[in-house]
Amino acid sequence: MPHPTVTNAKAPINPERLQTMMETLSSYGGKPDGSMNRQTLTAEDGRARDWLGRWFAEHGFEQSVDAIGNQFGALSLAGPNAPVVMVGSHVDSQPNGGRFDGALGVVSACEAILAVREKLAAENRLSACNFQVANWTNEEGARFQPSLLGSSVFTGAAELEWALDRIDGDGVCVRTALQAIGYAGTDTVDIPAALIELHIEGAATLFNAGETFGIFTRFWGATKYRLAFLGRQAHTGPTPMAERKDALLAAAYLMADLRAMVADHGLDLHTSVGRLEVYPNSPNIVPAEAVLFIELRSGSPDILAEAERKMKISIEQAATRAGVGFEVRSIDRRKAGSFAPGLIALAENTAQGFGETARHLDTIGGHDAVALSSVCPAVVLAVRSQDGVIHHPTELTTPQDQAFGTQVVADMLYRLACEGLEGVA
Amino acid sequence: MPHPTVTNAKAPINPERLQTMMETLSSYGGKPDGSMNRQTLTAEDGRARDWLGRWFAEHGFEQSVDAIGNQFGALSLAGPNAPVVMVGSHVDSQPNGGRFDGALGVVSACEAILAVREKLAAENRLSACNFQVANWTNEEGARFQPSLLGSSVFTGAAELEWALDRIDGDGVCVRTALQAIGYAGTDTVDIPAALIELHIEGAATLFNAGETFGIFTRFWGATKYRLAFLGRQAHTGPTPMAERKDALLAAAYLMADLRAMVADHGLDLHTSVGRLEVYPNSPNIVPAEAVLFIELRSGSPDILAEAERKMKISIEQAATRAGVGFEVRSIDRRKAGSFAPGLIALAENTAQGFGETARHLDTIGGHDAVALSSVCPAVVLAVRSQDGVIHHPTELTTPQDQAFGTQVVADMLYRLACEGLEGVA
Repeated sequence: MPHPTVTNAKAPINPERLQTMMETLSSYGGKPDGSMNRQTLTAEDGRARDWLGRWFAEHGFEQSVDAIGNQFGALSLAGPNAPVVMVGSHVDSQPNGGRFDGALGVVSACEAILAVREKLAAENRLSACNFQVANWTNEEGARFQPSLLGSSVFTGAAELEWALDRIDGDGVCVRTALQAIGYAGTDTVDIPAALIELHIEGAATLFNAGETFGIFTRFWGATKYRLAFLGRQAHTGPTPMAERKDALLAAAYLMADLRAMVADHGLDLHTSVGRLEVYPNSPNIVPAEAVLFIELRSGSPDILAEAERKMKISIEQAATRAGVGFEVRSIDRRKAGSFAPGLIALAENTAQGFGETARHLDTIGGHDAVALSSVCPAVVLAVRSQDGVIHHPTELTTPQDQAFGTQVVADMLYRLACEGLEGVA
Repeated sequence: MPHPTVTNAKAPINPERLQTMMETLSSYGGKPDGSMNRQTLTAEDGRARDWLGRWFAEHGFEQSVDAIGNQFGALSLAGPNAPVVMVGSHVDSQPNGGRFDGALGVVSACEAILAVREKLAAENRLSACNFQVANWTNEEGARFQPSLLGSSVFTGAAELEWALDRIDGDGVCVRTALQAIGYAGTDTVDIPAALIELHIEGAATLFNAGETFGIFTRFWGATKYRLAFLGRQAHTGPTPMAERKDALLAAAYLMADLRAMVADHGLDLHTSVGRLEVYPNSPNIVPAEAVLFIELRSGSPDILAEAERKMKISIEQAATRAGVGFEVRSIDRRKAGSFAPGLIALAENTAQGFGETARHLDTIGGHDAVALSSVCPAVVLAVRSQDGVIHHPTELTTPQDQAFGTQVVADMLYRLACEGLEGVA
């Protein structure tokens, strides 16, 4: 059933068809408890991609796969040289994550474009633009770092060869993983005229406010360090405490400092260590190496820079206290910024036409549209997440809310098809 | 070449034969950089055991393997009902460990018993006792916890079925691992009349004092916790800091507290977290679970109990600060104690007969002889470790020092063979 308030849709979507697609996609890596394990370029991801490719073929979309494995499905409605509006997200998931993060954005893109095609056909109307579904490689950054890998290569922000050389925890590189599932593509796909991404909010603002729909208008910046403390392997029994060089202890000192640091910045700084690799990780060996995956996030470039300065001091202090060395293995920086005003206005106008508010939100997590926003007008639309949960098996966006978000996308696309992109994108 | 001071050995060992055995054994899991990877019940451990079994067969030792995979080689010199003196250690290693820890104790047992047999044969002398080499399963506790698993089952301190159910980090249980390498034995081996273990010191006391040989007379106790902090998985981006339940952060607080705790106890308390398992361990997920492998060690039962009391308070505080729960998954306790005075005196007298001191040492790490000491007279003899290094590829005990320790063992065995065990064991 469509969202109750939507009785005046211009290009009505088919909510049952949308749900069927969501359920089919969820079968690749999903379990009955709601958990999703479809990390990028795994066999499960390959099966999900294969399904999407079959869907493209069955619905007249032309598939392209580029060298970093981004998967596209183009529907030509306006001929070869018309502008392309790209719509999509990613089907990769976190380990033990949820079903909606990313997947909804891909499935809703398919459904919205179908709805627009059907409506244009029924009206015998020509389109001003073509459409293209996107499924970006490794948005999550769980198996390979950094996140947004596929979209960053697509925009040129990341080098292809460098990206292909990224390795996972087992030493498998992206290049090998792409080949293993048959998605080391050779197609070249152009930067689109605009990009629209529908995503679950992944926070509780809409849910707590009792609202269905929001628009991410700003994105936070992030500074990500991969930092190794380097100690010396020794027996936890006889080795005198004063002689130990415990890399994990230095990590502990730093993690406590990183958490304390947020107190100085109200709600405007997030810090985390989500992944920690310990070597050799044996109960009776003093750890020789501890690798921390650190994230600093803020909407303010000044706060982000200040946090990084403080962190550097903390790193040195932690190393000194534990008697170990350290080594920065990598640094990734993503700038804070804003999405395209024309697309924001179009989304707002469309949602309000359905009687819905369209609250402006910050996105703190990365999205592929953040990467794309450096090369084309882009926006991320949000539908509410129950209790704000994301990256967890209980992640939930109801079928009604999925349908509402998809309907907003469909009507945005319909308006772009009818009115053209001028002033919007 | 034998140790320079040994010209009056009663049962002279063959140092070249000893070195050949050490080199052969080192070929199973050893690399040119000195590193040893022969974790218990792996294919490498299986090959090392097979080699030892062939050595037993070639030298007239009768092999037995018990249900926990302990491997024995019995040499009967005194007939069926004579007391048995057991000699040995373990061939399993730490990951990326050294070649001498454990291996020397097994190889020196073989060589010492051979030397005694040869001398008794040359003298046409009867023995008062039989000898048996022991290679204990999973001394290290690296792959399966707890350590001293084989010797603890042998003494009855650990239940066989419980021990067989222990699982490694990949979910493989001891039972399956034993079957995989063909060491799920069915033999029953009796508690010996005495147990002698030669081991590298694994600390720098002898090395710094310029001494070759020492005797462990006391063993430290250890209290080992496997503790899980239980948080809630969430996105490291949007999730507000105040709402996070970060299990790894709680682990960080506790690790810092455990290190601070030793300041109250001079040199008499060692604390460590050598292994930390983080789940799901993804860079942009707030960790839901962090499992710490904690060790508290002391020669004083009072200090050990006091440290455990303090740790419990720290666990609660760390959980509260990070907003997470916790769960004690297992507790292992090993009491502090002393080795057999008769065997200590025999070792001391033997070493001094070679003009060597026989410094009394505490052993802080566990040894199989510690497990055995609850059921029979037992002792651990120590040869110096260069720079005190253990559990590291640079672990080194020179061939001369290996030979000296082996010679002390051989002469101890010779005296037991000639004089009987009365008053000694």
